[in-house]
Amino acid sequence: MPELRKDPIIRRWVVIAKERARRPSDLHKGQVEKPAPDTFCPFCEGNEHTTPPEILAYRAPGTQPNKPGWWIRVIANKFPALQAEGDLNKRGVGMYDMMNGIGVHEVIVETPKHLRSQTEAPQKQVEETIWAYRDRLLALKKDKRLQYGLIFKNVGKEAGASLYHSHSQLIATPFVPIRISEEIRGAKEFFNYRGRCIFCDMVCQEREDGSRLVEESQEFVAFEPFASRFPFETWILPKCHGSHFEDIEKRQVEDLAGILRRVLFRLEKTLPGVAYNYIIHTAPFNEGFLEHYHWHIEIIPRLTKVAGFEWGTGCYINPMTPEDACSYLKEVNIEELEAA
Amino acid sequence: MPELRKDPIIRRWVVIAKERARRPSDLHKGQVEKPAPDTFCPFCEGNEHTTPPEILAYRAPGTQPNKPGWWIRVIANKFPALQAEGDLNKRGVGMYDMMNGIGVHEVIVETPKHLRSQTEAPQKQVEETIWAYRDRLLALKKDKRLQYGLIFKNVGKEAGASLYHSHSQLIATPFVPIRISEEIRGAKEFFNYRGRCIFCDMVCQEREDGSRLVEESQEFVAFEPFASRFPFETWILPKCHGSHFEDIEKRQVEDLAGILRRVLFRLEKTLPGVAYNYIIHTAPFNEGFLEHYHWHIEIIPRLTKVAGFEWGTGCYINPMTPEDACSYLKEVNIEELEAA
Repeated sequence: MPELRKDPIIRRWVVIAKERARRPSDLHKGQVEKPAPDTFCPFCEGNEHTTPPEILAYRAPGTQPNKPGWWIRVIANKFPALQAEGDLNKRGVGMYDMMNGIGVHEVIVETPKHLRSQTEAPQKQVEETIWAYRDRLLALKKDKRLQYGLIFKNVGKEAGASLYHSHSQLIATPFVPIRISEEIRGAKEFFNYRGRCIFCDMVCQEREDGSRLVEESQEFVAFEPFASRFPFETWILPKCHGSHFEDIEKRQVEDLAGILRRVLFRLEKTLPGVAYNYIIHTAPFNEGFLEHYHWHIEIIPRLTKVAGFEWGTGCYINPMTPEDACSYLKEVNIEELEAA
Repeated sequence: MPELRKDPIIRRWVVIAKERARRPSDLHKGQVEKPAPDTFCPFCEGNEHTTPPEILAYRAPGTQPNKPGWWIRVIANKFPALQAEGDLNKRGVGMYDMMNGIGVHEVIVETPKHLRSQTEAPQKQVEETIWAYRDRLLALKKDKRLQYGLIFKNVGKEAGASLYHSHSQLIATPFVPIRISEEIRGAKEFFNYRGRCIFCDMVCQEREDGSRLVEESQEFVAFEPFASRFPFETWILPKCHGSHFEDIEKRQVEDLAGILRRVLFRLEKTLPGVAYNYIIHTAPFNEGFLEHYHWHIEIIPRLTKVAGFEWGTGCYINPMTPEDACSYLKEVNIEELEAA
């Protein structure tokens, strides 16, 4: 049974998943390499029997679960950080707080083909991935033990991916993660003072200014944030205020698939073979519509090392301005993507 | 001129040091390897002319600055993240805040010999390093533009070190870093509620419990924190309450050198060749003695990858309990260190 433990000083919850390593030598060795394209891949069509059973699949009528015929497939993570069964059993250990490591850890396989990136698939496939994100969040929201659902994607070894085949992950936790609660608190304080959503103000300023604006579509903007922590850090925000990703409308899903694919294409062309993470920031499950919080996607290319200074301060040293990064991204000829 | 920019949501300051990279290709390539022991090292005795001039050195009487004869040498970082000259020029850019990237970035060369680790030098040499930390903090505290001095050490490529020769760094910033202000806020709230220092309570509980206690000396304890973010994360705290590292007394310096060296030896023996960071957490320059904050050292071995989940949540997945990590560290035969 993994455990959750809370740092009593800054109130950060930590998952202690001791099942994942028993000896120092389990940790201290080279990282898993991505398989070469011709090695065995459990996410490819035809290999369904090698993964945990599917939780959700979009598949052709008449095809059987855990058999070929799907285009999106959601399965439990084979090495989950959290465990789905059991109760929380919140308790104290002297001055410390702990509870059981209850939660959900799923994998969204985004294509039956052995592709690395969403840019290699048609836009329709990315739309279906976004629908799967939404379906799973709506389902997990009903579990009263869970407070938050985090959707994220690791691409490339440097970004923590151990498999090449394009996939996302969903981790649902019995607490609101500190990074999210801090973000919401900051946005709330701005709202209390100004009476406006800080993210809406950002969208407005970035559209007007233009120097950090990478893409704009009917429904979304993509820009390099003013205080980017990392070179080529890119955020995608809906223009229309909304606090919960799972409330996304159909026209927004279609539009988001397009802009996300274009932004990733710009990153991949500028930084060939780049490793990156993207993360959907959304409001907690048990909150109603929030006027002060605005869901969005943060894309983080993994180009710089995080060293002692960053760990000690929470302050990042970014060697490139977001304005320069934006210029590089805008230089990419996007017609190549449509022609592919 | 580098810039500091503040994320308006969670109020994190970022250094935009655009001098450090001009093109994507400056960022996107293999990391610098540590030089093999026989390649040129600017930190070795005899190579003083290849570094910026010394700011402070402990050297034999009669020897010349920037010549051999020193045992500790402090120099400006050749590629500083912040710039020492100029004023802050705080200003707004629409809704955003910024100021100039004023600050100090120094390197403390801990030995004239080409050693990787403090464990390869005698304890006396580590004591001298601690005195140099203190001397530099006391000097920089007088600069009214600066609010915080962070001392940290990166060892090994995975931890962000580009040079093999044992050294630490000092970055002084014109703001209090968010990680520190959060930590102080959390400790303050505990103090307001309980009337005690949360770190003193921790020292007390860890000594009583013992299952995470790695070392105890006259003046210090070293333990694996209850909610360790990383395997073998280790904290060293003075038993006697103090908020500012620079107020350290002579008997504490001697004692700290011993316990720090022993803890690092235990880590190196358990995880041969491990990369790690250590960071001194101390109170801001312009605070007087704080009853609610307690300076300490955090040691973070770099064994696990930080991926999308950690970036998105501020929550860490640690595959080993601190109790197990503590057991491994305690198994090390410390007599080997004294015999070396």
